[in-house]
Amino acid sequence: MTVADAAAATIAAVSHAASSGGDTHAMVSKIILQLLLAFAAAKITGYIFEKINQPVVIGELLAGVIMGPYVLNVLQLNDPSMHLTFEVIAEVAVILLLFSIGLETKLSDMAKVGLKAFWVALAGVVLPFALGFFYMKITNHNDIMSMFMGAIMVATSVGITARLLKDLDFMSEEVSRIVIGAAVIDDILGLIVLSVVSGLAEKNSISLAAIAVTIAVIVIFLLIFTLGGVHFNKKYGYRIGKLKARNAPLIIGSLICFTYAVVAVQIGLAAIVGAFMAGVVMAERESEFEVKEKLEILEDVLVVFFFVIMGAKVNITAFTDPSILFAGLIITVLAFAGKLFGCALPVAGMGIKKASFIGMAMVPRGEVGIIIAAFALSKGIIDDAFYGIAILMVLLTTLIPPFILGPMIKSIKRGRQNS
Amino acid sequence: MTVADAAAATIAAVSHAASSGGDTHAMVSKIILQLLLAFAAAKITGYIFEKINQPVVIGELLAGVIMGPYVLNVLQLNDPSMHLTFEVIAEVAVILLLFSIGLETKLSDMAKVGLKAFWVALAGVVLPFALGFFYMKITNHNDIMSMFMGAIMVATSVGITARLLKDLDFMSEEVSRIVIGAAVIDDILGLIVLSVVSGLAEKNSISLAAIAVTIAVIVIFLLIFTLGGVHFNKKYGYRIGKLKARNAPLIIGSLICFTYAVVAVQIGLAAIVGAFMAGVVMAERESEFEVKEKLEILEDVLVVFFFVIMGAKVNITAFTDPSILFAGLIITVLAFAGKLFGCALPVAGMGIKKASFIGMAMVPRGEVGIIIAAFALSKGIIDDAFYGIAILMVLLTTLIPPFILGPMIKSIKRGRQNS
Repeated sequence: MTVADAAAATIAAVSHAASSGGDTHAMVSKIILQLLLAFAAAKITGYIFEKINQPVVIGELLAGVIMGPYVLNVLQLNDPSMHLTFEVIAEVAVILLLFSIGLETKLSDMAKVGLKAFWVALAGVVLPFALGFFYMKITNHNDIMSMFMGAIMVATSVGITARLLKDLDFMSEEVSRIVIGAAVIDDILGLIVLSVVSGLAEKNSISLAAIAVTIAVIVIFLLIFTLGGVHFNKKYGYRIGKLKARNAPLIIGSLICFTYAVVAVQIGLAAIVGAFMAGVVMAERESEFEVKEKLEILEDVLVVFFFVIMGAKVNITAFTDPSILFAGLIITVLAFAGKLFGCALPVAGMGIKKASFIGMAMVPRGEVGIIIAAFALSKGIIDDAFYGIAILMVLLTTLIPPFILGPMIKSIKRGRQNS
Repeated sequence: MTVADAAAATIAAVSHAASSGGDTHAMVSKIILQLLLAFAAAKITGYIFEKINQPVVIGELLAGVIMGPYVLNVLQLNDPSMHLTFEVIAEVAVILLLFSIGLETKLSDMAKVGLKAFWVALAGVVLPFALGFFYMKITNHNDIMSMFMGAIMVATSVGITARLLKDLDFMSEEVSRIVIGAAVIDDILGLIVLSVVSGLAEKNSISLAAIAVTIAVIVIFLLIFTLGGVHFNKKYGYRIGKLKARNAPLIIGSLICFTYAVVAVQIGLAAIVGAFMAGVVMAERESEFEVKEKLEILEDVLVVFFFVIMGAKVNITAFTDPSILFAGLIITVLAFAGKLFGCALPVAGMGIKKASFIGMAMVPRGEVGIIIAAFALSKGIIDDAFYGIAILMVLLTTLIPPFILGPMIKSIKRGRQNS
């Protein structure tokens, strides 16, 4: 036996031994390797984007597209055995992101912009839905398909928008608070639209009583968990500071965050809505506990996984078909127009600069749109081409606004200095 | 339709809509709920254990046992669709733990205790292996089964031991450095034993050349990656501090940690050996970059999952069979004796207190033992009863030493004050 033979035999034996926990151990190593490569790619691309003054989040999304299953297939998102693990990591990441956004939002601040945010959200839901629905009707699709296209165009991606405002250091502005408030409200409205549309698709009928109850459940959740939580924190929260365990406020904050997220899911809301509410509750004592600073460390390591995985889901090969590309571009234009006008109109009184900033910041669609499209696809209501159109719309509404929002923010800041 | 009917219909419709991403979305929520409950249970139990002056890690392991599939089945570790996700989380957690242990270990300190640690590790591997092997031979088991019992008894759990020393605030002591050094070396020796034993089990023969090559590969890895890394960090590491990205040292540290872990797995070592080496490399500039402080925040949130999942793997129902219980207790006594005498003997010159502390600190077995037992079980070399014995040994060697090490540390500290 030569040394080379021995080496080969040993490496085989040793790697065999290393995978001794059965397939599981080898799979764990494989997933960790993929996560490492995706993390490295996203961090490097993000760093380059920061250097060239572009939003970091776009760099991370693009890194995801390239590392994902449709280009390099380094991040094997479509492997059925690994799929769930990646989804859990992405979900935990976006929950932490919305929690940290909530931490920067005091209830009193929310109350100030609440009514404006509500009208922005409502008009920003109605107009895109109407545009999507009527475009589909005009192009000879049936009612159900048309309604689903409308529903897909409804919900702004709070995650992407919030991250963008954070990266651009613009979170504390009134316009940003309106955007975040409206994005949270429109996520809730989007879920109501989804439950109505899917009810119609299954039963071809929907009861007004059922819709009323859905809305009542959501309002009760918000009242009890947010107002109750804030009250409780104001009165008893100081006790957390007295616990001697290391990082107690962060640990208790995380517990509250995930508890709210889980409860939100149980009553049919998105986990991120609950996480945001938990952040609002904890915000009352933020200056005291410094949870935000500590959470930033968790965020810098974890949140990137949400964006890289979102990017990896984009199937860019679908756009080689010119008819899909054409329909996708029209839907994208309608999706831009719907939010831009819908969301700017209710706040037109703030001036053209601020109103159009709010409209543009509400343009990015994301997870909720993809969830609705995937649901319709799995039910056979829409086909692959239609799904491709929806993904293209989500992709373009996410990729383009960051390039426009940067200059818009500069213009708002400049306007302030001149006055 | 009554209001109650409407409510029921709506809740069904809404929860249906919420799970619209297909089964995946519902599964993600289920896993997050389980992780939340396990996290809460572990943190509460850990806090209680701290209050009653017992090691926190034991509280977390016990929380795992109770939440795990064999008692409450809240943490559904044995569900095939969720299994992998939990394993990935546990692995990431223990990688971060070993990285942070490495960060507290400078190469120069390691060099001081290196030779002592090597002899402690070697004797602590040979004696338990011999005791396990001969007990099995005496009780009429065949060679292969006897060898596997020896192999299962070999490797100290670095994770549990290190966490214990950290909790007891004793990490900077010479004895602790010897323990950590020896535990890392014995993990490497354990993996060599495993590759030899599994080679024998498969081929009924093993070449000395192959063993030599295995050892050579490991030595080369350690030399290049540790010495080379330390040299590189000393010379060029200051550049990391100049990067403007937030938390750059932590992010680059994490990248190096997981890269080392992945390379270690590729050449047949455990991921945690690589993670420890990465920590040693980064330790050179620890005072400058404060990676350790930031990592502590990640640790406080993530590392608990390793221990709660390790606890959840313990099938306590296996011990209701008196013959398994009896054999398990004998193997446990041998496992204690093997490390206690084997590891204390090479350092007998340090005095009885310190030598016996080192021996006792090396007693806990863990992941490697369980991996070897699971491997042998899957190959049909050992049966369920034998597996139960191995698990009981791992459980008792993990649960008992913490209660003895606390008083031992106090005694060492008292002895120092008196002199």
